Amino acid sequence: MDSINKLAELFKEFPGIGSRQAKRFVYYLLSRNSGYLENLAKLTLELKRQIKNCSSCFRFFPADAAGAAQCALCRDAARDSASLMIVARDADLEAIEKSHSYNGFYFVLGGTVPILEKEPEKKIRSKALTGLVKKRAAEGLKEIIIAASVNAEGENTADFVAKLLTPIIAQFNIKLSGLGRGLSTGTELEYSDADTIKNALKNRS
Amino acid sequence: MDSINKLAELFKEFPGIGSRQAKRFVYYLLSRNSGYLENLAKLTLELKRQIKNCSSCFRFFPADAAGAAQCALCRDAARDSASLMIVARDADLEAIEKSHSYNGFYFVLGGTVPILEKEPEKKIRSKALTGLVKKRAAEGLKEIIIAASVNAEGENTADFVAKLLTPIIAQFNIKLSGLGRGLSTGTELEYSDADTIKNALKNRS
Amino acid sequence: MDSINKLAELFKEFPGIGSRQAKRFVYYLLSRNSGYLENLAKLTLELKRQIKNCSSCFRFFPADAAGAAQCALCRDAARDSASLMIVARDADLEAIEKSHSYNGFYFVLGGTVPILEKEPEKKIRSKALTGLVKKRAAEGLKEIIIAASVNAEGENTADFVAKLLTPIIAQFNIKLSGLGRGLSTGTELEYSDADTIKNALKNRS
Amino acid sequence: MDSINKLAELFKEFPGIGSRQAKRFVYYLLSRNSGYLENLAKLTLELKRQIKNCSSCFRFFPADAAGAAQCALCRDAARDSASLMIVARDADLEAIEKSHSYNGFYFVLGGTVPILEKEPEKKIRSKALTGLVKKRAAEGLKEIIIAASVNAEGENTADFVAKLLTPIIAQFNIKLSGLGRGLSTGTELEYSDADTIKNALKNRS
Repeated sequence: MDSINKLAELFKEFPGIGSRQAKRFVYYLLSRNSGYLENLAKLTLELKRQIKNCSSCFRFFPADAAGAAQCALCRDAARDSASLMIVARDADLEAIEKSHSYNGFYFVLGGTVPILEKEPEKKIRSKALTGLVKKRAAEGLKEIIIAASVNAEGENTADFVAKLLTPIIAQFNIKLSGLGRGLSTGTELEYSDADTIKNALKNRS
Repeated sequence: MDSINKLAELFKEFPGIGSRQAKRFVYYLLSRNSGYLENLAKLTLELKRQIKNCSSCFRFFPADAAGAAQCALCRDAARDSASLMIVARDADLEAIEKSHSYNGFYFVLGGTVPILEKEPEKKIRSKALTGLVKKRAAEGLKEIIIAASVNAEGENTADFVAKLLTPIIAQFNIKLSGLGRGLSTGTELEYSDADTIKNALKNRS
Repeated sequence: MDSINKLAELFKEFPGIGSRQAKRFVYYLLSRNSGYLENLAKLTLELKRQIKNCSSCFRFFPADAAGAAQCALCRDAARDSASLMIVARDADLEAIEKSHSYNGFYFVLGGTVPILEKEPEKKIRSKALTGLVKKRAAEGLKEIIIAASVNAEGENTADFVAKLLTPIIAQFNIKLSGLGRGLSTGTELEYSDADTIKNALKNRS
Repeated sequence: MDSINKLAELFKEFPGIGSRQAKRFVYYLLSRNSGYLENLAKLTLELKRQIKNCSSCFRFFPADAAGAAQCALCRDAARDSASLMIVARDADLEAIEKSHSYNGFYFVLGGTVPILEKEPEKKIRSKALTGLVKKRAAEGLKEIIIAASVNAEGENTADFVAKLLTPIIAQFNIKLSGLGRGLSTGTELEYSDADTIKNALKNRS
């Protein structure tokens, strides 16, 4: 197999990329100058050295010269230590941050729990989560918000996390909540399902 | 113009139907037996005689032998007279009823108010609405729920209705609410807009 | 079931119409004036009386006062009697006529033959076709063009028609042809299948 | 800007990739082991050293130890030197080769000529093309096939190339052809445009 096909095989593993687009990526690279390719290769190679998982929330963050173990967000004293939001992935955390509507801390599960999964505790960072919650509980944590997508796997993950945390929240008297359900931007009432309408009515204001 | 094209012209006025599909409908009718066509023509012809607008909520309902002016829902003594929900169209009312999560009465506006509309009061049943609200207020109405779709025209309609009803709700001390915003069924957190996330956080539980 | 739902049930049988759009059609009719509805009902009712199948090509055509058995196209002496094009449906004939690139006569099969069909001769107007071809053969027919869509059912229909006509075309020395294959408008070479490219090369000019 | 965003910026330049998917690619890389990343970086870096443009047809091909200037296809004595096919890009050439219906040589233009382009000769390999055609003409070239996509830019490119080659093909008595037009795989007759039908009739067989 030549370099074009070898590289196309690697691009084919990218999320959402088929063999045709993978090939197209290679031809695109061939059309660019060496500077672009060297830059791409260098950043790819250094990615894991320059990006670490935060020791507290486990999101990816750029390592600094000082070798901080925690990301800037977890080190931010202005954030509200009474709140912890649990999300599945970094992209979810970013969507929340972009909304500028939350000022507490986070924990990134690193995945979701599929329906009927036999070892759910291995699909997400279960131990790190319970460890962090205990630590935060001692520091004044009052509420945990499980922020999950509204689909079968998201709700299954939320259920598993809730069960996992039950003993701790009972012991420390922490409130456990989920994101509110209702009409989202763009929803047309006529096409809404019963569940969404029921929640939109419950959350009316 | 022959009958095929004349009929196709009429079908072309149906919502969402282009000239090609309109023609296809005519060929479809030509492929059916006379019984089907007679049935279709008869029901079309009798539609307006058999379906009336309810004198109270203005939804369409089948006229009965007794000549009732109100639909079955508005005559249902088991419904909660403390609640009135305002919707744009019959299809919205049907979506709410299918959710089995609301037991009050309704009012169907019969349309929406476009942005920058100069005569908004003419786009919906404004007079009938204020008339009904006054009547229901005297009968113990406690809350009006404006159930609008979450898009520019839906929100504009909700704003206009709220303004229209302000004097009455002030006079009779009626609560005015809208459907709750948040994550709807199928929403993926990663792709949610800031507004939806803000509301989902506000409505968390 | 009330008139709204009864009528919606009939619309649901229209090609490509689901239950939601069927309901929408009924609400649309309720929003129109009586003139439109009466017109729609009248045209529907009279459709089969006013539209006949041409006794020659079997396309639908508007019956006239004189009671002509053949459509205007089959009676047109300016058309070329040396050519007969066989199409599956009226809509195909219309697409050909709109292209202004054919001046012979037509025959409308009234359907297609599904793969593995046990009684293919019953899915299309087999007898009428062979009858017409024999008659036209005596009148100087030189070429039959089978104009089929390029998909499994279209090609299966073309194969069946070719077999059906083999004895007659042999007897009368008629040429049998199919529409040319190649790149159609909008085709991008990169995404073309092998069969299309092979034919495009064969038909290059 | 940190490494995640820097790398996402580079992926955003890939054809068809938006900022969200670019970010997703980076998170995907973070989830893979170092072996995969090193492989990706290495192949990217070496791509231009290992892949050259063929000195004859200008397609990309893997450089070999012997330092051949021409690709395997151009060095293949079994190919028919009487035919030259001109395509816009490598992907077009690959589609033709996959169809196993052409046995001549190729030339890759490296682009297309947009409508109203002021310097069309700079958008494609004009000089290399005329050079190659002259050389092949001396070696027995009989036919040039311009294989363009059937859209405005494809046809404009074909027109420009035809004009560019007019003096040479006149001098050497070379035939100039284009791919045949007609119904392509999957085409439904009912939805075909007039141009496609006209060509399908012309190319009937």
